[in-house]
Amino acid sequence: MKVLITGIDGYSGWALALHLLARGHAVVGLDNFVTRKRVREVGSWSANPIPPFPRRQRAVREVLGQELGFHRGDTNDFDFVREVLKTERPDAIVHLAEQRSAPYSMIDVHHAVATQVENITGTLHLLYAMQEVVPESHLVKMGTMGEYGTPNLDIPEGFFEVEFRGRKDTVPFPRQAGSWYHWSKVFDSGDVMFASKIWGLRATDVMQGVIYGIRTPEITDDRLLTRFDFDETWGTALNRFIAQSILGLPITPYGKGEQRRGFIALEDSMQSLRIAVEHPPAAGEYRVLNQFDAAYSVNELAEITALVAREFGLSPTIAHPPDPRVEAEQHYYQPIHDRLIGLGYRRSRELEEVVREIFRDLRRFRRRLEAKRHVVQPVVQWRRVDSHEAIAQRGPAAPSDPPTERPPVAEDPRMA
Amino acid sequence: MKVLITGIDGYSGWALALHLLARGHAVVGLDNFVTRKRVREVGSWSANPIPPFPRRQRAVREVLGQELGFHRGDTNDFDFVREVLKTERPDAIVHLAEQRSAPYSMIDVHHAVATQVENITGTLHLLYAMQEVVPESHLVKMGTMGEYGTPNLDIPEGFFEVEFRGRKDTVPFPRQAGSWYHWSKVFDSGDVMFASKIWGLRATDVMQGVIYGIRTPEITDDRLLTRFDFDETWGTALNRFIAQSILGLPITPYGKGEQRRGFIALEDSMQSLRIAVEHPPAAGEYRVLNQFDAAYSVNELAEITALVAREFGLSPTIAHPPDPRVEAEQHYYQPIHDRLIGLGYRRSRELEEVVREIFRDLRRFRRRLEAKRHVVQPVVQWRRVDSHEAIAQRGPAAPSDPPTERPPVAEDPRMA
Repeated sequence: MKVLITGIDGYSGWALALHLLARGHAVVGLDNFVTRKRVREVGSWSANPIPPFPRRQRAVREVLGQELGFHRGDTNDFDFVREVLKTERPDAIVHLAEQRSAPYSMIDVHHAVATQVENITGTLHLLYAMQEVVPESHLVKMGTMGEYGTPNLDIPEGFFEVEFRGRKDTVPFPRQAGSWYHWSKVFDSGDVMFASKIWGLRATDVMQGVIYGIRTPEITDDRLLTRFDFDETWGTALNRFIAQSILGLPITPYGKGEQRRGFIALEDSMQSLRIAVEHPPAAGEYRVLNQFDAAYSVNELAEITALVAREFGLSPTIAHPPDPRVEAEQHYYQPIHDRLIGLGYRRSRELEEVVREIFRDLRRFRRRLEAKRHVVQPVVQWRRVDSHEAIAQRGPAAPSDPPTERPPVAEDPRMA
Repeated sequence: MKVLITGIDGYSGWALALHLLARGHAVVGLDNFVTRKRVREVGSWSANPIPPFPRRQRAVREVLGQELGFHRGDTNDFDFVREVLKTERPDAIVHLAEQRSAPYSMIDVHHAVATQVENITGTLHLLYAMQEVVPESHLVKMGTMGEYGTPNLDIPEGFFEVEFRGRKDTVPFPRQAGSWYHWSKVFDSGDVMFASKIWGLRATDVMQGVIYGIRTPEITDDRLLTRFDFDETWGTALNRFIAQSILGLPITPYGKGEQRRGFIALEDSMQSLRIAVEHPPAAGEYRVLNQFDAAYSVNELAEITALVAREFGLSPTIAHPPDPRVEAEQHYYQPIHDRLIGLGYRRSRELEEVVREIFRDLRRFRRRLEAKRHVVQPVVQWRRVDSHEAIAQRGPAAPSDPPTERPPVAEDPRMA
């Protein structure tokens, strides 16, 4: 199959490209490199240096012996999206080119608007261009388990049968998202569902759990590493916890730390996306997959991190700062995730083993973590309308602990 | 109370301003006049001429003896929105400044994007500016009954208790909108609900039924008339049906015509909005009102129109063109609408009597209908990605029936 990956330069996009190539699919990508820019905007970078895209393509050629097509451009430019589809005519489109950070969307009104506007615009452009150019293609759209929120109910895969006042119907499961970013994903889901209905498009909407990990079997060379974010804006809780313990900072589960979420290893998320691509739904079918492997509380993540940190000779501490988000700190959480298993999904990695692997890699990049230690602890507050002052006040890295390595970003402005 | 009305130059906004003034409230408005521009874009105009805004303000002064404050500007400009709130410090904000046409949103990708982007941006700007400047104020946000779609269930007011796999919770009622426009309203609802939660804002989300009517008791002078759209893009089904019968065109309920929707008279919609304004919810409460009076099928509207048309000596015919929308043409429809009645709402107008009133007024503006008869019949198709060609092909008004009245729009570019 020929697969177009939008956002191919990102964390999932890059790992997926390698995985699909290794499985014999043709892969072409597009990206506008805005994540690199926005990670710089908050003063951070990837734990491991990420080469400019042409060097990534060269590494794929040299290490995997494969060609990776690429178009530089923005999904918010409709003519660009249409031209890419006309040129490539993909069998499937995996749409990952979206602003993906909840804290980034909560910085202020302009970040809120940019997140929602850019995300829904890119998706609408893709839907219209698909219907015009490749109506038989299959859209795999990246959503999030966070669309559902944490209702006091089991969470089905997209739809459920309800009874109300003596009547029954199967309807979309209500969405109660927890940030402007998460709402933008809810909006995308509505638009994709509607496009499938009016135009008969085939679409898979992936309710993605939180991904953890830094490697997949295809990453056999440092030049093939995908980005790994560890700052408060772009890093997941687990990534921050690991960075915190390496940096001697307290591990910070927010509030009570009983917030539970669905998680999946990077390798298994790629497995799941490939399964979705290889098993397209029927024309007009809007299919929702809850794509996670197991649920953990934030406290459990903190404890696993501390456990592994001690194996590495570190002395981690756990603190509980007030939750900067507005969310239930204790709640029921039982989402259903049967469909991917029905299509052949099997877990290949265990959380603890992956955490160990991340520690091993991050210790190699310790100096890049040290240089950015001031952006690891949380400052963006959900209850505030403007977190700029808090961001400004966190100041530079501690003077006692300066970066001694010349940051690669200085050598190449596109290096992140 | 001091009430800010965004979109005060529009159909509801203008009628609401007059109603609130008559009830002793202070009213200030904002508008960017984009509806006038977009009605011109599709080749149409209001059945009755609408004076430029300064003349509308003067008429209010002369006829009602009241001052109507006004700020010209765009809710998509955050600094403008914030400045207006700082200047006016309203007790309530009725947010009507949105692209409100489903067919307009379905013309092509750019109209789809503009509708969703502008609507959610304006709402996000208002929410942020409120929280910063007037956090105790009350946002009354205009949504639509169309957010719910037509599930095989009774439709509650926003939330319902469900049981799923042995557990119960009260959750938002699922939304299944029927156009990019209707989805934009769903998105707004999500953002307003979330803002209420994180910032403790008080908000009323109005699931508005289709409004019918051309007059309210405050409209005692032609200079005070609100706009009345009758073309396929901006006019409601009932408005088009009345225009069709006056123009000797067939009345066109789409498909089987059994689509049922909730309706409310203009005067009663204004009553409802005033009740909402005068009874604000508690801080942090997100309240949903299903604001309609009675449900009718499109066929019933066509029959009432034909009945009244015959009273006026016309010979109406009814045709059933294929439905250009993608919607159920026969379905269950039983929405609940108890809350407004609980707050004191009482019906003041009957549909048939209002239809008669519209006929009386539209006959006076018959020449303006004749001049635009080519834009009354439906051409925008939900299944098409681009309806521009169909719009271009519908051609000008029939040569046998030219406008003999010099259109006021030629005298004043802001007259619509």
